[in-house]
Amino acid sequence: MSTDGGTRLVLVAGSTRTAEIDGISAAGADESLLAHTPAADAEILRYGDVVRAPEVPQSPTGCLTPAVVTRAVVELLDLDVTVVDGGLAEPSGAPTVTVGARPGRDVREQDPVPSAPGAFEAARQFGRSLPADEVVIGETIPGGTTTALGVLRALGERGGVSSSLPENPVDQKESVVEEGLTASAMEPGEAADQPKRAVRRMGDPVLAVAAGVAIGAIETGRAVTLAGGTQLATVGALLRHAGIEGPLSLATTSFVDDDPSADVRGLAADLDLDLTVTDPAFDRADHVAMERFVVGEAKEGVGMGGALALADRAELDPAVVRDRVAAIADDLAFEP
Amino acid sequence: MSTDGGTRLVLVAGSTRTAEIDGISAAGADESLLAHTPAADAEILRYGDVVRAPEVPQSPTGCLTPAVVTRAVVELLDLDVTVVDGGLAEPSGAPTVTVGARPGRDVREQDPVPSAPGAFEAARQFGRSLPADEVVIGETIPGGTTTALGVLRALGERGGVSSSLPENPVDQKESVVEEGLTASAMEPGEAADQPKRAVRRMGDPVLAVAAGVAIGAIETGRAVTLAGGTQLATVGALLRHAGIEGPLSLATTSFVDDDPSADVRGLAADLDLDLTVTDPAFDRADHVAMERFVVGEAKEGVGMGGALALADRAELDPAVVRDRVAAIADDLAFEP
Repeated sequence: MSTDGGTRLVLVAGSTRTAEIDGISAAGADESLLAHTPAADAEILRYGDVVRAPEVPQSPTGCLTPAVVTRAVVELLDLDVTVVDGGLAEPSGAPTVTVGARPGRDVREQDPVPSAPGAFEAARQFGRSLPADEVVIGETIPGGTTTALGVLRALGERGGVSSSLPENPVDQKESVVEEGLTASAMEPGEAADQPKRAVRRMGDPVLAVAAGVAIGAIETGRAVTLAGGTQLATVGALLRHAGIEGPLSLATTSFVDDDPSADVRGLAADLDLDLTVTDPAFDRADHVAMERFVVGEAKEGVGMGGALALADRAELDPAVVRDRVAAIADDLAFEP
Repeated sequence: MSTDGGTRLVLVAGSTRTAEIDGISAAGADESLLAHTPAADAEILRYGDVVRAPEVPQSPTGCLTPAVVTRAVVELLDLDVTVVDGGLAEPSGAPTVTVGARPGRDVREQDPVPSAPGAFEAARQFGRSLPADEVVIGETIPGGTTTALGVLRALGERGGVSSSLPENPVDQKESVVEEGLTASAMEPGEAADQPKRAVRRMGDPVLAVAAGVAIGAIETGRAVTLAGGTQLATVGALLRHAGIEGPLSLATTSFVDDDPSADVRGLAADLDLDLTVTDPAFDRADHVAMERFVVGEAKEGVGMGGALALADRAELDPAVVRDRVAAIADDLAFEP
């Protein structure tokens, strides 16, 4: 294995039909958007543009996908990026590594993610052999905070997930999760020693794959950063419940940290995750793509928090990052 | 679409069961090697190392896969690389774009590549939207010179394919192709106006995908180089028979050019392909990996001829290329 592997960003892109539940996800309002968002995010991250996906994921009010922010940092730092298929419903024009993950079903079903155990193991083998000294893991999966909540409940951890919507539909998520636990004949905390079961019954394929890649990388001595908010904190929970005891880092955005309906700091503390919060100072940007983040849309995703932490570590001027985000956003806006 | 797309190397990696015929392919001597060679080539090209594949493809006499040479140029020129799944039998640890290609069956069957038409169209869409100013297309598919011969016959072109073996089993290939034409109830030249049918009945999925990507890129104004010998010349034949009339480039190695059993110059002339032949002066190398090329093993593959042409265009000192090939080969040799 190459020892000069550097830092590699691994994006796990997948889907769960949980996202189709009314009001759960910002992407969910539009069926086509829902199906194509993860594939589009992967393309934007790898190419700087959508290639096969029909449109750039954005909210009805103009908030572009966080993939644009991560892409800006990828360009500025010339980061290596690998996309892993964590259950894509629509094939992506971005190259993806296959680990056997299938799209997840609605968590209110009894067995929504039967591919989770196999995908976890294949992802672990991949994480073991991936050339890199440092692995930064991000996700893109509409509806993923609800499934993350489901896994946290199944593991017996405190739940407190964020949302891509400015108003977090917390009650609805709790209700969906409760229904899911009942359907799986599972009490909260019952899967505390069975992380794979927790994901299979109450989660989504992206959680399984991200956890697998992380464990494989950790087992082979690489530094791992979970790049995200409550979803990646949930991956951290899976790792802790799988017996991983060493240091684990979580890198998220100030938008998630500021979200009063979530509690990423509490979750990080419970799980002994070293938390990094980066504020990209988007309030100083004069561009709709970043302004929407400031009012609470999107918040995180596609490894945005981890990318911003890398930019900060490399001492990139935040204004330079903002300018690049604006440039990419403008390029995308003129797509036919 | 980004206009500063630069040069992108697209490797189409796939399989055909034609390779299992005794004596046809250098990879064919070893069943495991056969199944894993394209996936391993993709990994070496993208990571500089095998990741998921069990071993580095090499001949019994120590000739390493041409992927090592192409990788050397990729590193030296910092080339963008995209791998497209052209019918992989084994999943690769390298990220791949999916276009619906399935492994090809033995061309002696009636309908060996039913996925060809669909994969061609999907590949074309991908080629249309791929961000790049220039697209250099290579292949890796054991047995692919036999299926290329099959397609050339079906199109009514002169056949004269090369081989990864120092002794080209020409008679055996001709016999296999004849059997295939009979099974498909096809006369030589009968598919002259039906390139997709030629590939479906007598070819392999890599030819379909490579042709699709090429046509999509050409339709959208990009410069396309077919990076290979007789297999990519066959892609050129498919393009000509599909009505593509503009300039087309073929870039191969001196090893293919020197092969008396093939006739790549004749084929290029028939098809009006602008031929570039690059000699990497491996006779000046003091390393087994390159010495085997000099005695006629491997010869080409994984875009090697195209990569060497790019290196030449960038005025890289051939000695620098040789040194990098040696370094990569040595790294690979010490894999557990």
